[in-house]
Amino acid sequence: MNNTFLKACRGEKTDYTPIWMMRQAGRYLPEYQKIRGNVTFLELCKTPELCVEVSLQPIDILGMDAAILFSDILILMEAMGAPLEFHDGRGPVFPETIRDQSALDKLIVPNADESVGFVMETIRLLRQELKVPLIGFAGAPFTCATYLIEGGSSKVFWETKKMMFREPQLFHNLMEKITESTIGYMQAQARAGAQALQLFDSWAGILAPCDFKIFALPYVQKIISSLKQFDIPLIYFANNGSTLLDYSVESGADVIGLDWRINIKDAIKHVGNKAVQGNIDPFALLLPEDELRKRIGRLLDDASSAHGHVFNLGHGIHQFTPPDQAKIAVDAVHELSSR
Amino acid sequence: MNNTFLKACRGEKTDYTPIWMMRQAGRYLPEYQKIRGNVTFLELCKTPELCVEVSLQPIDILGMDAAILFSDILILMEAMGAPLEFHDGRGPVFPETIRDQSALDKLIVPNADESVGFVMETIRLLRQELKVPLIGFAGAPFTCATYLIEGGSSKVFWETKKMMFREPQLFHNLMEKITESTIGYMQAQARAGAQALQLFDSWAGILAPCDFKIFALPYVQKIISSLKQFDIPLIYFANNGSTLLDYSVESGADVIGLDWRINIKDAIKHVGNKAVQGNIDPFALLLPEDELRKRIGRLLDDASSAHGHVFNLGHGIHQFTPPDQAKIAVDAVHELSSR
Repeated sequence: MNNTFLKACRGEKTDYTPIWMMRQAGRYLPEYQKIRGNVTFLELCKTPELCVEVSLQPIDILGMDAAILFSDILILMEAMGAPLEFHDGRGPVFPETIRDQSALDKLIVPNADESVGFVMETIRLLRQELKVPLIGFAGAPFTCATYLIEGGSSKVFWETKKMMFREPQLFHNLMEKITESTIGYMQAQARAGAQALQLFDSWAGILAPCDFKIFALPYVQKIISSLKQFDIPLIYFANNGSTLLDYSVESGADVIGLDWRINIKDAIKHVGNKAVQGNIDPFALLLPEDELRKRIGRLLDDASSAHGHVFNLGHGIHQFTPPDQAKIAVDAVHELSSR
Repeated sequence: MNNTFLKACRGEKTDYTPIWMMRQAGRYLPEYQKIRGNVTFLELCKTPELCVEVSLQPIDILGMDAAILFSDILILMEAMGAPLEFHDGRGPVFPETIRDQSALDKLIVPNADESVGFVMETIRLLRQELKVPLIGFAGAPFTCATYLIEGGSSKVFWETKKMMFREPQLFHNLMEKITESTIGYMQAQARAGAQALQLFDSWAGILAPCDFKIFALPYVQKIISSLKQFDIPLIYFANNGSTLLDYSVESGADVIGLDWRINIKDAIKHVGNKAVQGNIDPFALLLPEDELRKRIGRLLDDASSAHGHVFNLGHGIHQFTPPDQAKIAVDAVHELSSR
């Protein structure tokens, strides 16, 4: 069993820096595309045997030091009663937006073991196969709320901020319900065998720090505090969140995820005795091999002052990335960090 | 003549904090919509009399302390020989992308007084009308390059980064040509009478600091250094650029523009003796009047340590913003900062 990832999360010494990549079970791998060619995205998410297969691919093919459950952060929103559609090339759509109390009242706090039992089954099956730790995950409440309010992805998040600024109580009510659902969901993942849990706050970076503190952070704190009992590493990743780092540290997470916009050395100054995860620009995987290795070497040096470093991309791996380039990165991290 | 804006840019004492808003001559104003209803966006940009009219509207209606030339950063790209189309609701499109040297060779370095003489005419006409200073502007080279390479707006800028990482020389050649054109363009604006000049780097924030330093900053520095001779305030605004601030300061600009993602007090620690411009979340204009005034008061307090503060939004004013709310903000800034 390779526990390097878990040790790094805990700030313990490791023989080398562990690496995994956000969205590593994904479209850049031909082996994934093959499976995805036969089913819709949602069918894939709901079929444990297929989820297991695609979750294992990057471990077997690229040698990642951790696996992440194949799923989508919006699966939980569907379980809460929000109809969810995925259209190729268009991203997720929630045709029934949540913009008033009556729409919110229709959402439920689901029993995760029942309504998203396929996720727990995937976790149990994966644990039987894996020789590396398994990461479970959920979307952070603010990010999930934006999808429900906007009805999908957004460029400017007008409706979300309009609700925050004009109807803050309604916004907080929505956040409460998502938070309660997320707690049940992540606790179920931990009971099913997830060995670490990550909260993805993909859209936290659209908030001014003063708004993040009021509208997003308290709910992240509540979730993380509810998970402490499981004694597994908890990771919080606020995308585009460099100016939110001082607050992210207050989330209670053990590991702070970093996007690529900040030099990791500067970020480490903010995170105190927490571990960090990140943060090479995913598109830097396009660099010629010698330059990619040099950049990875510099990043490892810059991260040497961290109390634990999990190498990762600063965002999900892009679908057009050649898998060979991802393999170069994995090998370079292992080789250049060996001590 | 109200020179409060120019004095704040220079770090001189002012009776109150001046305010203007990015995209203040724009769609949120019914008076703008009326004019825009009769012409296409590009026709509007190329008709000095209409540009003058819409540039004056926010001064007359809302009491802004500076006017900004009505134009678009991509007008210069069209003058360089890249066909440009605007489609309502879709953003700008460059059907002929610049992705190889032969496409780049077809672009020219235009004589701004000839090819975009309508911009200079707008500036001359505006100066005759205005009782507040007039800001000219251009897109920063990196931002302009992304539009030419991607063929328009982008979500992830795959083609841009692919060129940066795979064909850096080609990328630098493109940046050189845009830089040379921008120097000619901004010098012509200064000669025509612009009293301050702003470089908009709308997409700089997609770059890791190490890449910004190599691929974007040197060109900004070159432009700014070519404009020093005019002895007018130069403003550099790198959108989503909180982690680039230490480099932005090295740009040579007199004023550093800030988006809303950072507490202005934290930003000021990075900018030394430069003035700052910003940085309330544009959507915070939706707050109820008392809360909007409170937020503005806090921002003014946080900015009190700055060597000059020009109040602005952290991004362009959104088209659905009620003009009355913008007026509340202008009045609050004037009133709360009076000393």
